[in-house]
Amino acid sequence: MMDTKIVIAGPRGRMGREAVSLVKHTDYFHLAAVVDHKNDGGLLSDFDGFTGLDIPVFSNIEECFQKVEADVLIDLTTPEFGMLHTKTALSYGVRPVVGTTGFTKENLNELEDICKEKGLGCIIAPNFAIGAVLMMKFAQLAGKYFNDVEIIELHHDEKLDAPSGTAVKTAEMIAEVREAKHQGHPNEKETVAGARGADYDGMRIHSVRLPGLIAHQQVMFGSAGQTLTIRHDSYNRASFMSGVKLAVDTVLNIDTLIYGLENIIE
Amino acid sequence: MMDTKIVIAGPRGRMGREAVSLVKHTDYFHLAAVVDHKNDGGLLSDFDGFTGLDIPVFSNIEECFQKVEADVLIDLTTPEFGMLHTKTALSYGVRPVVGTTGFTKENLNELEDICKEKGLGCIIAPNFAIGAVLMMKFAQLAGKYFNDVEIIELHHDEKLDAPSGTAVKTAEMIAEVREAKHQGHPNEKETVAGARGADYDGMRIHSVRLPGLIAHQQVMFGSAGQTLTIRHDSYNRASFMSGVKLAVDTVLNIDTLIYGLENIIE
Amino acid sequence: MMDTKIVIAGPRGRMGREAVSLVKHTDYFHLAAVVDHKNDGGLLSDFDGFTGLDIPVFSNIEECFQKVEADVLIDLTTPEFGMLHTKTALSYGVRPVVGTTGFTKENLNELEDICKEKGLGCIIAPNFAIGAVLMMKFAQLAGKYFNDVEIIELHHDEKLDAPSGTAVKTAEMIAEVREAKHQGHPNEKETVAGARGADYDGMRIHSVRLPGLIAHQQVMFGSAGQTLTIRHDSYNRASFMSGVKLAVDTVLNIDTLIYGLENIIE
Amino acid sequence: MMDTKIVIAGPRGRMGREAVSLVKHTDYFHLAAVVDHKNDGGLLSDFDGFTGLDIPVFSNIEECFQKVEADVLIDLTTPEFGMLHTKTALSYGVRPVVGTTGFTKENLNELEDICKEKGLGCIIAPNFAIGAVLMMKFAQLAGKYFNDVEIIELHHDEKLDAPSGTAVKTAEMIAEVREAKHQGHPNEKETVAGARGADYDGMRIHSVRLPGLIAHQQVMFGSAGQTLTIRHDSYNRASFMSGVKLAVDTVLNIDTLIYGLENIIE
Repeated sequence: MMDTKIVIAGPRGRMGREAVSLVKHTDYFHLAAVVDHKNDGGLLSDFDGFTGLDIPVFSNIEECFQKVEADVLIDLTTPEFGMLHTKTALSYGVRPVVGTTGFTKENLNELEDICKEKGLGCIIAPNFAIGAVLMMKFAQLAGKYFNDVEIIELHHDEKLDAPSGTAVKTAEMIAEVREAKHQGHPNEKETVAGARGADYDGMRIHSVRLPGLIAHQQVMFGSAGQTLTIRHDSYNRASFMSGVKLAVDTVLNIDTLIYGLENIIE
Repeated sequence: MMDTKIVIAGPRGRMGREAVSLVKHTDYFHLAAVVDHKNDGGLLSDFDGFTGLDIPVFSNIEECFQKVEADVLIDLTTPEFGMLHTKTALSYGVRPVVGTTGFTKENLNELEDICKEKGLGCIIAPNFAIGAVLMMKFAQLAGKYFNDVEIIELHHDEKLDAPSGTAVKTAEMIAEVREAKHQGHPNEKETVAGARGADYDGMRIHSVRLPGLIAHQQVMFGSAGQTLTIRHDSYNRASFMSGVKLAVDTVLNIDTLIYGLENIIE
Repeated sequence: MMDTKIVIAGPRGRMGREAVSLVKHTDYFHLAAVVDHKNDGGLLSDFDGFTGLDIPVFSNIEECFQKVEADVLIDLTTPEFGMLHTKTALSYGVRPVVGTTGFTKENLNELEDICKEKGLGCIIAPNFAIGAVLMMKFAQLAGKYFNDVEIIELHHDEKLDAPSGTAVKTAEMIAEVREAKHQGHPNEKETVAGARGADYDGMRIHSVRLPGLIAHQQVMFGSAGQTLTIRHDSYNRASFMSGVKLAVDTVLNIDTLIYGLENIIE
Repeated sequence: MMDTKIVIAGPRGRMGREAVSLVKHTDYFHLAAVVDHKNDGGLLSDFDGFTGLDIPVFSNIEECFQKVEADVLIDLTTPEFGMLHTKTALSYGVRPVVGTTGFTKENLNELEDICKEKGLGCIIAPNFAIGAVLMMKFAQLAGKYFNDVEIIELHHDEKLDAPSGTAVKTAEMIAEVREAKHQGHPNEKETVAGARGADYDGMRIHSVRLPGLIAHQQVMFGSAGQTLTIRHDSYNRASFMSGVKLAVDTVLNIDTLIYGLENIIE
């Protein structure tokens, strides 16, 4: 792999810290600078948890790209800053890999035009966990051949909403290809309400909440004599980094905007 | 193990056929006769699926015990005949192992008195699948130490009721020992109704129905940093036979009535 | 779907019986005749387990196609007869769906030429369980993004060989795309030999054998913070029928030979 | 529950930090002091990660108990200090809960005598994860009724030894009660060496190693038509704290030495 000079925006957030660790542990990645809107000047090593990383800190992204040469910007900030950072990077010929959510349709169209005009790649993804993205993709593929499917998602009991966003998104993706069917026996009866789970387009979603659990999802398909199960277990934020790495490797070889990690997979 | 002469009542039913197979494949079990209220005289080998089993068939159980010497009666008939068969067996000094359900409290009291008077063992159990009985027992034991528990039961999609009887019975058994708690975050919210499953005394039960599945149940306990899962998979009726065998071995060494396989385990 | 007239060769074998059941339960499939080299004349209903199926039986496939009009031949016989049946069907303009294994490279080349010449579709597959084929396909896709993978296959304890053919085939398919890696810590040590399973190109395969189990396989991928698991459970032969149905539906719309169910999926 | 004054020895170790967190989050537990052989005087809040905990620190345990009133000592130090701390605590009438391993048979005998003489409870346990202890206990119970069992243990790929200590201990516990049997078909054959795992007294142990995994174990039992599975997933060190809490609650109500968490369960 070729040497890649990287700027990280948002290095002190939870995702940002993982990204710093990723760059540090990948031999052909080099951390050129970090952008931190709350701090200017000094070194990353001045902050807790970054011992030995004598990397310049900029509060102004424009100034950063004027002073430091970079190939890729990894942006893990907020929707507020994400659009500004992405445009600025492109204007300096730096390819953005963006984990920030909240881009509008208009934002994406505007960025698409800039990419085309400049011939620069840019990857924006709401979910960088490759395993989760593959789980959804495989579930959609299987949904063409099995029209009986139930989703079980399991999370820690601090989670407020049920079903999870990922479960709903998985169901949506399956619904696009699955022959419509109302799951279960036509005469089935719940003797205790809710036993059969949430009904999403005839599919069933079950949300398990237990202390100890982290973030897990299992998609089960059944037909006569067989079941097919696809499961993703996410144990911690490090799971996002395999996707960030893939995006950095990919963004250098494309010249358009790609939205969603699923579109750079396969 | 000592040689055991066995009479089977109901040999042509689905459970009865498994029992015949069990006796045939256990070297110290000997099939002395079968009782089949629809047929009299002739041999078991006259019927489809019993090639080589030249065992006498009786329609009248009284006549059977007059003509044939037996240690144990395995009764897999209907509630209608179960009580008559059990009492007749005990009157001839034959120890009953009964898989028939539907005994009333009065029936059981009456049989208990007969057992005591005669000094004979008798075992009656609604569920002979040792694995399922152990799953429930272990779930109850774990319920003392974990008060967060969710039950996922998974069955073929011909099943009409949700949750399954076993799931409800498991929840009841856990509720006897578990410190009361309403599972999940106090402020959790179902964005699609039913996602969090059926509420049984604060525990949650989820019923999955898919073609291909047979009969499966998973009991999950969670506390900070860990989960404990107990799962039983039943693939076919042969699963009942390990319990019938244990009951036959046990009934020879007891002199009272025992109701429920869980009471001869451990 | 359009009405499809089907001939089944090998109707009394285990797979053949499932195929008869499939045709019977699919409303647009019609059983036109069966080919059974041990029997000639008479009706399928003359045999045990085919009540009501007054379908003609032929021992000679040539005679069958002369007398009966058919769209598709489902062949579930032996390698010995498979090639003959397939060629004969094509010569009568009937499209073959073949579950027989043992075709040689030469056989396949010859059939390919006939298909091309006649403009007829033909599908030959060693494994018709869609779930198993999808599991292997997904495992291969995931192998591009995860180079750490272990396969756990679980079977009944009558199985003689370990690992299973499906496990080895899965490993082969992953090996085609996976970046080579020797799984586990470089300094890992087995304190009891065999603990780390079979080594296939650096991947590990574990074979579990237990009575009760049927045929199950789990492919686990791991990277920092996450695991992705793909599992197939096969409970009985009915699992093959979803693939046979898909092949029948597909063979009518193609004009070449396709080998392997994976090549008609997606 | 009654108010309990607690001293923690080894508060800055990984387990010690979890214990401090446990005491802080349990309303009837009060942290009276900590013993830290490397530091003397000052407050726990002087150290990183203990903000707000203005609790006295002693390097000498004797001095600690002279100055501070306590009911229970939680000792999470090293074998070197464990014996001294335990004896000193008992001499001051403080009941020890000890997570240190490495006590000799002689040590335990000596402590047993002191407990008896003083009428004080003391609990020493090498493993405080209740879930893991229950898993082993259940596996042993099930081993009486199923003699076919395979253990699958799954860990991160930094682990050097295979099988894990817990897997071997589980196998030992099952072997005590299980009817001896060599697992698998008598004629089974490994086409790739190691596929059938490690042989422990005829049982099979499989060790899976993948990045992402933490510490997991699954014990599977099988008999005709059914499987029973007991699984423990440990996600982080917090899993030990439920056992430490149970031990503190229990040690106040006993007047002997108990070794092993399994002996205070049920």
